[in-house]
Amino acid sequence: MKSIQVTVGDVTRELPTIQVGAVRRVPLVEFLGDSELTNAAAEAMLPLLNPDTEIMLTVVTNALPLVHELSDRSGIPYVVVRKKRRTYMRDPMIQEVPSMSLGVNETLWLDARHAERLQGKKVLIVQDVVSSGGTGTALARLAERAGGEVVGYLAAFQQGGKKTPFELTSLQELPGVQGEDH
Amino acid sequence: MKSIQVTVGDVTRELPTIQVGAVRRVPLVEFLGDSELTNAAAEAMLPLLNPDTEIMLTVVTNALPLVHELSDRSGIPYVVVRKKRRTYMRDPMIQEVPSMSLGVNETLWLDARHAERLQGKKVLIVQDVVSSGGTGTALARLAERAGGEVVGYLAAFQQGGKKTPFELTSLQELPGVQGEDH
Repeated sequence: MKSIQVTVGDVTRELPTIQVGAVRRVPLVEFLGDSELTNAAAEAMLPLLNPDTEIMLTVVTNALPLVHELSDRSGIPYVVVRKKRRTYMRDPMIQEVPSMSLGVNETLWLDARHAERLQGKKVLIVQDVVSSGGTGTALARLAERAGGEVVGYLAAFQQGGKKTPFELTSLQELPGVQGEDH
Repeated sequence: MKSIQVTVGDVTRELPTIQVGAVRRVPLVEFLGDSELTNAAAEAMLPLLNPDTEIMLTVVTNALPLVHELSDRSGIPYVVVRKKRRTYMRDPMIQEVPSMSLGVNETLWLDARHAERLQGKKVLIVQDVVSSGGTGTALARLAERAGGEVVGYLAAFQQGGKKTPFELTSLQELPGVQGEDH
């Protein structure tokens, strides 16, 4: 399997690739288990934060250490959307994400306690990797339904060279290579 | 619904409670979306790290920002076990967790790439909240199957006043109150 080199700040990783679409492979960026890469990405994203941002909204799982670190460094709080209903949620807000690849919708869950934190706030949507923008659009819809105002979209990486339905700021477009699985 | 106050270092939170067992409620500790509480817990856990530790092993989801922060502050790397199979995993190690409450087993997944990082290493099992210890036992089994040596178990909190099947170090036992749901 081909690997691809990705550099963020002074951290370079030789990453395995995963297939997207029929004949294209992109690097698999995992922040989980890599605090150096996480910190490098958070540091590089800091100057890209929309200065109006009052709170960040993200979604599990890979983005979690990254957005924690971004919150820690910027002092801006954050809220996390889940992909499964948790038994402790009270009156959760539910939002569907149309899936391009699987043909089944993914469901996002936002606990009412956390939705309240978005009310009347300027919200920045933050993600690890953005491809088609479907999840970002669903997160923005959740933020608005919770009474927040979306002031921008920030991601560590874009992949697939697709045009997103919103204006996205990111560190870089992940390089892709031709190649099939196995 | 009764709330319960929890203090870690200089951070105090009034937390909602969740039911465990028939008539007992414990605080719901969420590190996701709370970088201050996460940092306070990581800072307090730092002196409790087994000094022999070469790598930490944890499991998604709530512990992720905590273990990232602990890794960042200690310089000790970490590996994350997932609860769902990801399409990109190659030859994942699979481990069942017997569930006390649901009667169904939960399955842990460790990508072979990450399992390799545990080989020949002294491994500390790190969790956010430990109750019966079932998940901790399964994580330790994974670490051993990957060729690591478990040197201890560390958690931010214990709950339920149960005796775990291993010696656990934690910041505190979460206070419980009598009370039923709703």
